[in-house]
Amino acid sequence: MSARLAPVLDRIDSDLDPALNRLLQLMRIKSISTDPAYKADCAAAADLLVADLKSIGIDAQSYETPGHPMVMGHIDGPKNAKTPHLVFYGHYDVQPIDPIELWNKDPFDPSIEDTAKGQVIRGRGSSDDKGQLMTFIEACRAWMAIHGELPCEITFFFEGEEESGSPSLVPFMKEHADKLKGDVALICDTGLFGHDTPAIVTMLRGLMGEEIVITAAEKDLHSGMFGGIARNPIRVLTSILAGLHDDTGRVTLPDFYEGVPELSEDLRNQWQALNFKPEQFLGEVGLHIPAGEEGKTGLQMIWSEPTLEFNGITGGYTGKGFKTVLPSQASVKLSARLVGDQDPHKIRASLHAYVKANLPEDCSVEFHPHGASRASVMETTHPAFEQARQALSDEWPNEAAFIGCGGSIPIAGHFKRIVGVDALLAGFGRDDDQIHSPNEKYDLECFHKGIRSWARVLDAVSQG
Amino acid sequence: MSARLAPVLDRIDSDLDPALNRLLQLMRIKSISTDPAYKADCAAAADLLVADLKSIGIDAQSYETPGHPMVMGHIDGPKNAKTPHLVFYGHYDVQPIDPIELWNKDPFDPSIEDTAKGQVIRGRGSSDDKGQLMTFIEACRAWMAIHGELPCEITFFFEGEEESGSPSLVPFMKEHADKLKGDVALICDTGLFGHDTPAIVTMLRGLMGEEIVITAAEKDLHSGMFGGIARNPIRVLTSILAGLHDDTGRVTLPDFYEGVPELSEDLRNQWQALNFKPEQFLGEVGLHIPAGEEGKTGLQMIWSEPTLEFNGITGGYTGKGFKTVLPSQASVKLSARLVGDQDPHKIRASLHAYVKANLPEDCSVEFHPHGASRASVMETTHPAFEQARQALSDEWPNEAAFIGCGGSIPIAGHFKRIVGVDALLAGFGRDDDQIHSPNEKYDLECFHKGIRSWARVLDAVSQG
Repeated sequence: MSARLAPVLDRIDSDLDPALNRLLQLMRIKSISTDPAYKADCAAAADLLVADLKSIGIDAQSYETPGHPMVMGHIDGPKNAKTPHLVFYGHYDVQPIDPIELWNKDPFDPSIEDTAKGQVIRGRGSSDDKGQLMTFIEACRAWMAIHGELPCEITFFFEGEEESGSPSLVPFMKEHADKLKGDVALICDTGLFGHDTPAIVTMLRGLMGEEIVITAAEKDLHSGMFGGIARNPIRVLTSILAGLHDDTGRVTLPDFYEGVPELSEDLRNQWQALNFKPEQFLGEVGLHIPAGEEGKTGLQMIWSEPTLEFNGITGGYTGKGFKTVLPSQASVKLSARLVGDQDPHKIRASLHAYVKANLPEDCSVEFHPHGASRASVMETTHPAFEQARQALSDEWPNEAAFIGCGGSIPIAGHFKRIVGVDALLAGFGRDDDQIHSPNEKYDLECFHKGIRSWARVLDAVSQG
Repeated sequence: MSARLAPVLDRIDSDLDPALNRLLQLMRIKSISTDPAYKADCAAAADLLVADLKSIGIDAQSYETPGHPMVMGHIDGPKNAKTPHLVFYGHYDVQPIDPIELWNKDPFDPSIEDTAKGQVIRGRGSSDDKGQLMTFIEACRAWMAIHGELPCEITFFFEGEEESGSPSLVPFMKEHADKLKGDVALICDTGLFGHDTPAIVTMLRGLMGEEIVITAAEKDLHSGMFGGIARNPIRVLTSILAGLHDDTGRVTLPDFYEGVPELSEDLRNQWQALNFKPEQFLGEVGLHIPAGEEGKTGLQMIWSEPTLEFNGITGGYTGKGFKTVLPSQASVKLSARLVGDQDPHKIRASLHAYVKANLPEDCSVEFHPHGASRASVMETTHPAFEQARQALSDEWPNEAAFIGCGGSIPIAGHFKRIVGVDALLAGFGRDDDQIHSPNEKYDLECFHKGIRSWARVLDAVSQG
């Protein structure tokens, strides 16, 4: 450990209670971004963050947008030092609290609770993302308290619309691209891999969504009169959908796997070491058999292999009881998670061609596209990535790993495409944090070690 | 033509205007059986029919039920004549009128309209079933007027709950089985085959309905986190459904075709002569390719072949827009139309076994049965069937045929099972009557020739 880091870590330990109080103060603000009723609360949260950054000595202000304010702060690093410019992203808005009756306490009256698994910070936003955002601010505060400056140039960037689709994000980033153009973007909105294993997400899957509506007869028919002779669109649809995967679980669409890379030996070994147990992962939701393509590991199925999933299907009578209707229409919403260089537009075209080729001559089909984004694979060549991985490994019981993420985190792609900066996604949430659900919590240990982790990362990446 | 028939037909022709007025009077009563608001109207319709039967000289009364009243009437035939006892069934209740804004006039203010295709009786119940029911009463009225008696014993039986599931029908028929036990039941609630071809329905398909609910994970999952590794119940369901028919359209369930008879040479020839055009039949609803089993004719597909149709399917997110949910459940409502001796319970068991055999080990399935009725095949050995077919052929431009019917008409089965009487289903509706829809009509020609048809049938079956 470097001589300059040890006193910072000590300061973090001794300042934990005040740090917690600052987080609880932020959590008391009802910054639900999706509900216009909480517009003033969102502004209040932004203002609190501006004040808090200023209290550390950071030049900060909030920026109005058509939606909720953005917060930006900036501080220079040591003069003449060859240290990187870091841009830190987090979001101060939170999910709605419905269904409120499932909360054991007021979601906006947070507190520290003792549980069988240790102490937790309970309340909306504790893990997503106020608690995570504050880990970085607290690390900076401790560093400033000890050294009177930060070890490198840092731009702070907090959004208030992450839970409501980020309508203002892209225009704002374009307008302020010069300020956001650091060397590496740090994003703290992800989790640990397993209980004690920190992780840096370097692969995010892309998405291609499509709704397919098949029409047979012009109107719903009586199955007594027409059943047997008239085309049933549910039968047409189910037959088409059933043909999209083969018996091994592989997607059958032509060209679907174009651009899917082989997993590198390096990542394969790192992932092997993570000792992921699919039965345990699936056991949490009542399943136990990995349902992906035969011959792939569980982590490949969720991180590095594409999927084609049916998200919704409907047709005919779906109410209570029974109607012997022979429906006019049936439809499906489906989405492909993409990896590597898969091209969502090419896959959409292949899907259209397949559906049309399998459509009976007297049926028609409508397609409604719903999003198309390529997978993000972070360039991890900047030395900060390996330095951060080492720093995280030093703080936690297990070695940190570069991992994948099955979902998509748009901000990472925005940093790459709008500002040209690779994002380093590290966070300290745990799987049982119940984000987006009632009784959200953040482990006190995660908050504490999260702050210490960022102090270590600041130290590691700014050795100069 | 028999000497006694000619004056009856003349009387029918000269009495057409008063007959129409009697029908319009009945149609003005808002006897919507499914809506409790019209309970008094239903009773008023029953009372009107009782009074009308009495005015002809028939001993009639209405019977209270837990729902709407039943009407029964009775009159003996000529003394010592060896003529059959006929039981005539019709229903005086009508469908609701929603959506009322699609009616061009008040559904309960009926009138005679001139149209491009001839004069029609416009209004709710004109075809289903007040107009049809009155064809028989008017035939009896004319016969009584000329001969002072009817040519055979007749029991009249009118129901007021046919459009609302007939909850009182079976108990009532059991209680009054002795009165209903004639030689042949006449049911006037079906249509012509084509514009000018009368028909007697002798085959009604049965029904086996089932809802299948497949559950994978305990709750809806995020397809980013779990997509690829967790089982998707929509995929499981579509794959199971797609396996229920082979490439020729034949149902693959073991034992499904057990009890499906070969079409007799006789019926095959009669149906051939009907010159049914599937393209034309399907063209009415925007289709043109018969979708049933390869190698079967259009009429076989809707009358004498079983079907397995999907009536409704649902799972996951089906609202507007898109959600990348990986759902916990997916379900289908399906129904089989049965013919010959197919056993609905055996087919249900075969379906259950097939679904279970194709269900992944970590999914579960629930089955909800919705009805099980065997097909009805009328015994047409009673001479009245062939006599009636001849009589209908004499009235209409084309020869009458014994035909099938894809739907089910429960009253026919009740006559068979409860009273032990075969039903002769003959009616004069046309395909464009818009029954159950706005602007229902009954062709004046059908009303007029319908009355004449019943006079001919009465004459033919009671030659003694």
